[in-house]
Amino acid sequence: MSGAQAKQSASGQKVKTAITPTRGEDFPQWYQAIIKAADMAENSPVRGSMIIKPYGFALWENIQRALDDMIKAEGVQNAYFPLLIPLSFISREAEHVDGFAKECAVVTHHRLEAGPDGKLIPAPSAELEEPFVIRPTSETIIGDAMSRWVQSYRDLPLLLNQWCNVMRWEMRTRLFLRTSEFLWQEGHNAFETAEDAHEDAMKMLRVYNELYENVLAMPGIMGEKTADERFPGAVRTFTIEAMMQDGKALQACTSHDLGQNFAKSCNIQFQGRDGQQHHAYTTSWGLSTRSIGGLIMTHGDDDGMIMPPKIAPHQVTIIPIVRDDAGAAMVIERCKEISDGLRRAGFRVHFDNSDARTPDKMWGSIKRGVPVRVEIGQREAEEGTLTFIRRDLGKDSKKTVKVEEFFGTLQSVLDTMQADMLARARKFTNDNITDVKTLGDIRSFYEGGGLGFVRAPSSIINEAGLAELKKDLSLTTRCLPFADEGKTVLIGKSY
Amino acid sequence: MSGAQAKQSASGQKVKTAITPTRGEDFPQWYQAIIKAADMAENSPVRGSMIIKPYGFALWENIQRALDDMIKAEGVQNAYFPLLIPLSFISREAEHVDGFAKECAVVTHHRLEAGPDGKLIPAPSAELEEPFVIRPTSETIIGDAMSRWVQSYRDLPLLLNQWCNVMRWEMRTRLFLRTSEFLWQEGHNAFETAEDAHEDAMKMLRVYNELYENVLAMPGIMGEKTADERFPGAVRTFTIEAMMQDGKALQACTSHDLGQNFAKSCNIQFQGRDGQQHHAYTTSWGLSTRSIGGLIMTHGDDDGMIMPPKIAPHQVTIIPIVRDDAGAAMVIERCKEISDGLRRAGFRVHFDNSDARTPDKMWGSIKRGVPVRVEIGQREAEEGTLTFIRRDLGKDSKKTVKVEEFFGTLQSVLDTMQADMLARARKFTNDNITDVKTLGDIRSFYEGGGLGFVRAPSSIINEAGLAELKKDLSLTTRCLPFADEGKTVLIGKSY
Repeated sequence: MSGAQAKQSASGQKVKTAITPTRGEDFPQWYQAIIKAADMAENSPVRGSMIIKPYGFALWENIQRALDDMIKAEGVQNAYFPLLIPLSFISREAEHVDGFAKECAVVTHHRLEAGPDGKLIPAPSAELEEPFVIRPTSETIIGDAMSRWVQSYRDLPLLLNQWCNVMRWEMRTRLFLRTSEFLWQEGHNAFETAEDAHEDAMKMLRVYNELYENVLAMPGIMGEKTADERFPGAVRTFTIEAMMQDGKALQACTSHDLGQNFAKSCNIQFQGRDGQQHHAYTTSWGLSTRSIGGLIMTHGDDDGMIMPPKIAPHQVTIIPIVRDDAGAAMVIERCKEISDGLRRAGFRVHFDNSDARTPDKMWGSIKRGVPVRVEIGQREAEEGTLTFIRRDLGKDSKKTVKVEEFFGTLQSVLDTMQADMLARARKFTNDNITDVKTLGDIRSFYEGGGLGFVRAPSSIINEAGLAELKKDLSLTTRCLPFADEGKTVLIGKSY
Repeated sequence: MSGAQAKQSASGQKVKTAITPTRGEDFPQWYQAIIKAADMAENSPVRGSMIIKPYGFALWENIQRALDDMIKAEGVQNAYFPLLIPLSFISREAEHVDGFAKECAVVTHHRLEAGPDGKLIPAPSAELEEPFVIRPTSETIIGDAMSRWVQSYRDLPLLLNQWCNVMRWEMRTRLFLRTSEFLWQEGHNAFETAEDAHEDAMKMLRVYNELYENVLAMPGIMGEKTADERFPGAVRTFTIEAMMQDGKALQACTSHDLGQNFAKSCNIQFQGRDGQQHHAYTTSWGLSTRSIGGLIMTHGDDDGMIMPPKIAPHQVTIIPIVRDDAGAAMVIERCKEISDGLRRAGFRVHFDNSDARTPDKMWGSIKRGVPVRVEIGQREAEEGTLTFIRRDLGKDSKKTVKVEEFFGTLQSVLDTMQADMLARARKFTNDNITDVKTLGDIRSFYEGGGLGFVRAPSSIINEAGLAELKKDLSLTTRCLPFADEGKTVLIGKSY
């Protein structure tokens, strides 16, 4: 069920951790183990598709709610477009089809029947005249709708978003980070001018950055992708690159300035202010369940997940500490009162009144990363106090306070924890970006076991040896950070 | 753009309606026209799949939010399961496969390539060993997860729900009512005993009934489906049958007691309190975007949609009436203040400050069914008043009041309208249920142009002539209403 494993630390001391292996021992295995320990997701019998379990899905719902509000505040409207895309649509944009044709699920039949051996097979008589792909992304099908909806400059800007599932047939999958089916939002906006589209792509990236920093407590580096890393069909692709605790990069979201590429291939034309027909300029921007993988690899520790308070499915766990039946009723009653009171005050509370053992309840709360754990025993119940522990600081943060005091300070405890989590992750990121000058510097940095990103002069992109170096060391170009105005490039290993 | 069409009424008077044809002239065409006029959805280039436009999707989001809160209040947790279902899974339950194999989208390949003529085709080298179907419903894939998650009676009840898209390959489709792809929630619960499962299926039906009556202002008749109308694989199917304005029935949602059928085919077993292994008892229950079709056919009139205030995307439209440039700025400013004030008070407000003509704004608000339309001209702006009209009562309800008075009464205006809408729909339903005794009564009722449902003694189900009668008159058995405790059966035409 649970309990910490006894571990040998580097210094030879016994250290207890709830997750085996630890981050330091085997980061990829730790990642799988923490998802299991926190009960967030699991692999399904459908190769490459995951099951998002209730605790993981509650997290996604909180991310959705936060981002959806921010998207709507920008004047974007939600809508819903078909799951299936005709092959003729996906073929419309040349780079786009190259990018997605190699890994997509193809629907070819619309009926099953019993085959010769009695097993079900696709009915030969029900083969589709034109097959469909399950959307890997929806530029073409939404572009087609836009071609009908946009007639005049008065119809612009047209700002649309959908929350949906998409599918890309991945051969090597990993929970949340890379799955054949994943959940995301994809925004698709259309504008009158190239400048409007460019500004929109930048603006939506800033919206994502606000979500990452202020809600997920994940600092990211905003920048532009180099040509070889652009979205298929985009003129410019903007990205947020986040550094995971193993020093690798996660592309946390992207926002694309599509110029007139999709407007031309989908025929999105409008009568302009000059009375002439013009092609629109479009953008697209997406953030997916991959963000949860990033959240785990940014904040998890060797005892389990640590949830940023703003999106934690439970902000507080309340655990009754019951030693004998005599005092039990009072302790349970007190826990219930406090849970109800906190819920009325707007907090997300988990009162763990299950029949699990007390240590299992405590470790359950730790592994799931609930920000604040409250323990109430008979003594606390009698004295009108409670004991609480901040998940990220552990037992050193343990405090016993009057219940009224806890009610008065909980919000600020959560706010402080949220800020501390961001600050720690930011420090880790900043500490692990190393400035380099030459290809040789990069090689010696990573061959010497260097961790994190390197930041090089952007002129290095054009050097002949870069491709070979990247191949040798499994490096990729992450982005040209906005902060350095194109003068530098970030390079690193990545997910 | 808009404007009412001049119509000849039955009495020879000219009547203006915004929707052509009217309900009386051609109900199916009126249905298509109102969806277009209210800008809610449209057909897509993917046969059978619809595009839900922003105004229609905002309505769905409001329905989702209301129902999701109710589902969670019952202790059900949201999760997410794979879109694709292996053929071996769908085959597990014999009736289930018979019910869904004939109309499903089959995925057979995972890559495209250029064919002999350069067009994309499914790559022959990328044929899947085992094809998948796109979920028509998820009993089998969720049942498979339950078989892993349920080990002991302590793991029960297990209460799960997902909001997702599903696909059933329909040959004759109609926006919202019957589309190949649709959106829904599907709940899947597992229990220790047959009684628990039965009670759950009944309880979730009551949850739906609460949504329909209290939120959508749609009265429905709760009852049990007869054996021939059951969900494939269910022991008992419960339904809410709603009467549309043409007298036809819409199955508004269903809740199934699956007994041990899926537990046996999916191997959901647990160690019981007696230490022995037992199969669980499961339920499933779903409500889809079809509910929007029902909403339209319950409440729409010949001028457009009428939205129940509780889920209206906009509860109030504010229209500035500007005659000359001189007064315009003040009127616009006043409208903006009032809009902002109403939004702060928690109302959903659409301030129509577009450059459309004033009559087009008014008709736009009418066709979209916004519950309350507010008009503010120069005189109102100067006097601190506004004029408002309730959509369902039309111009007879027009009132000019002080702005402060409007703020004080708007909520009760909306509440009254919500209650009136339910009462009107309930009266229509009750007025159009005709009690009959024999098959001959039913035949003469419908052959004589009778509208609505007939309620017959339930013994009629076993009569030899019923099947032929139903076929002749396109009738179906709707349900055995709970209210009559199995003594009667409702029969009618249906969607």
